Amino acid sequence: MNAAATNFERVAIIGLGLIGGSIGLAVRDHLPGVTTTGYDADPAVRKRAQERGLADTIYESASEAVHRADLVILCVPVGAMGEVAREIAPALAKGVLISDVGSSKQTVADALRAALPGREVIPAHPVAGTENSGPDAGFAQLFQQRWCIVTPPEGADPVQVSRLVSFWEALGAMVDTMDPQHHDLVLAVTSHIPHLIAYTIVGTASDLEDVTRSEVIKYSAGGFRDFTRIAASDPTMWRDVFLNNRDAVLVMLKRLLDDIGGMQKAIEESDGTALFDRFTRTRAIRRSIVALGQDDARPDFGRKDHDNG
Amino acid sequence: MNAAATNFERVAIIGLGLIGGSIGLAVRDHLPGVTTTGYDADPAVRKRAQERGLADTIYESASEAVHRADLVILCVPVGAMGEVAREIAPALAKGVLISDVGSSKQTVADALRAALPGREVIPAHPVAGTENSGPDAGFAQLFQQRWCIVTPPEGADPVQVSRLVSFWEALGAMVDTMDPQHHDLVLAVTSHIPHLIAYTIVGTASDLEDVTRSEVIKYSAGGFRDFTRIAASDPTMWRDVFLNNRDAVLVMLKRLLDDIGGMQKAIEESDGTALFDRFTRTRAIRRSIVALGQDDARPDFGRKDHDNG
Repeated sequence: MNAAATNFERVAIIGLGLIGGSIGLAVRDHLPGVTTTGYDADPAVRKRAQERGLADTIYESASEAVHRADLVILCVPVGAMGEVAREIAPALAKGVLISDVGSSKQTVADALRAALPGREVIPAHPVAGTENSGPDAGFAQLFQQRWCIVTPPEGADPVQVSRLVSFWEALGAMVDTMDPQHHDLVLAVTSHIPHLIAYTIVGTASDLEDVTRSEVIKYSAGGFRDFTRIAASDPTMWRDVFLNNRDAVLVMLKRLLDDIGGMQKAIEESDGTALFDRFTRTRAIRRSIVALGQDDARPDFGRKDHDNG
Repeated sequence: MNAAATNFERVAIIGLGLIGGSIGLAVRDHLPGVTTTGYDADPAVRKRAQERGLADTIYESASEAVHRADLVILCVPVGAMGEVAREIAPALAKGVLISDVGSSKQTVADALRAALPGREVIPAHPVAGTENSGPDAGFAQLFQQRWCIVTPPEGADPVQVSRLVSFWEALGAMVDTMDPQHHDLVLAVTSHIPHLIAYTIVGTASDLEDVTRSEVIKYSAGGFRDFTRIAASDPTMWRDVFLNNRDAVLVMLKRLLDDIGGMQKAIEESDGTALFDRFTRTRAIRRSIVALGQDDARPDFGRKDHDNG
């Protein structure tokens, strides 16, 4: 895949954390003819981005970074999208395509549409990440074998949609398109609720009086440690996700709470059959996730800590 | 560490799944002077255990396997402990120490005490495992750097406690002792509730009508896939855990539900400060878990799927 395949010549990345930085590194690896420019509001991040080469040129303002770009990707927390869009609006080139990487799509689409009237805006969401954040967290392979969901607004130019799809495919992603409402519902299930529950359970365990924090840490290999990984994710990003995908998250949380209530009742009533049935049905979905290349097939995610003893 | 260090000569392992099999393999690696015997109720498991050499000799009955053993370790689901103990009782040698590996300790201690009057019973729980089960799942390094909790009953012989501690240390574990009630509360937090929630959330996601199972699988890298690992654990084992540690699980579940309610309220009220505060506090505990060698420090647990693209 080369620059011609995506038809973009100059890609501006605004926000140089895990996702923005990974885009810059992936473009360098996979689209060597494409020039990247970058900006981050934090001077320390800009400095580190320069050192790591997250973009070809790092600018001191978002407006300078987007100047002459034909693709601008906003990689900031979803709550900051509108403000950044308003800031860059006057500096945008004619014919530029604006996209983003936010984890919720409906409110972001609304915010970008309001801030950038008359501009071509096609939001997107690469479903990829790690628990790390900041300019040191990104890596060029982050999007390999991961899905990127593009949510074109009604009336979007199909040529521009296709250019954006090709761009993400060039970075190694598989691309789906869907409407933003459905995206927000799907991601509430596959990402937002898991994060909310992980954050909560880790918080609950930290706050107990009858079980010490030291005990929680020592015996975390019983299952708890799995939850601490996503509960170590970026707090600003996740605050904004819950503020911006409130309705879908609350709908899905309600269903989960109903199901937890069912489990609670089965335990209270010592209903072993109900528990066994539930526990049996959940194995198949993991097998499918592994079979479709969305998780590591090795036991324990391939953790190597057993070798350190 | 050698046989002399543990003072056991012949260890009988009843139940040759993930934990029993790993004990057999670990004894072979770490305690070459110790003889192991094994039994499993399932003939197919016995056959596979023979092929893999999970114990030096696999017997056709539990009574034959425990005959002449000076340490018997019951590695069956906690709901089956009492029955197995009654079965082996007449065949036990004089002076034998009986232990187990169950994930709940109070009901197991009661069941073993009732089934084996006058015998030295010292329950234990190695806090280690993977999502796999059965005779192919075990490996000799499973207990390396993991904690094993020994729960001696009141009046236990300190010499026997010390022998059991040495045995687990020889297999690579670090050992703590605590009373069974406290064990059950601690493990409700660090293991049982995480499993219950993971099973539930995977079930909820599988049952939705407005989000397809295919979508759940495709976009699982957003966080959901982490929960599917422990939700793929052995259903019989986990049914028994919830039936046998009911009270502690219900107490801890109540606290978790209160905290989820707090999160729900913060989202309903768009209280970004409350969310941010909560999300910030949970990072520290993961850092401690990694620092104390209880999880892999690499991002994403060191999953290698990014390399497969």
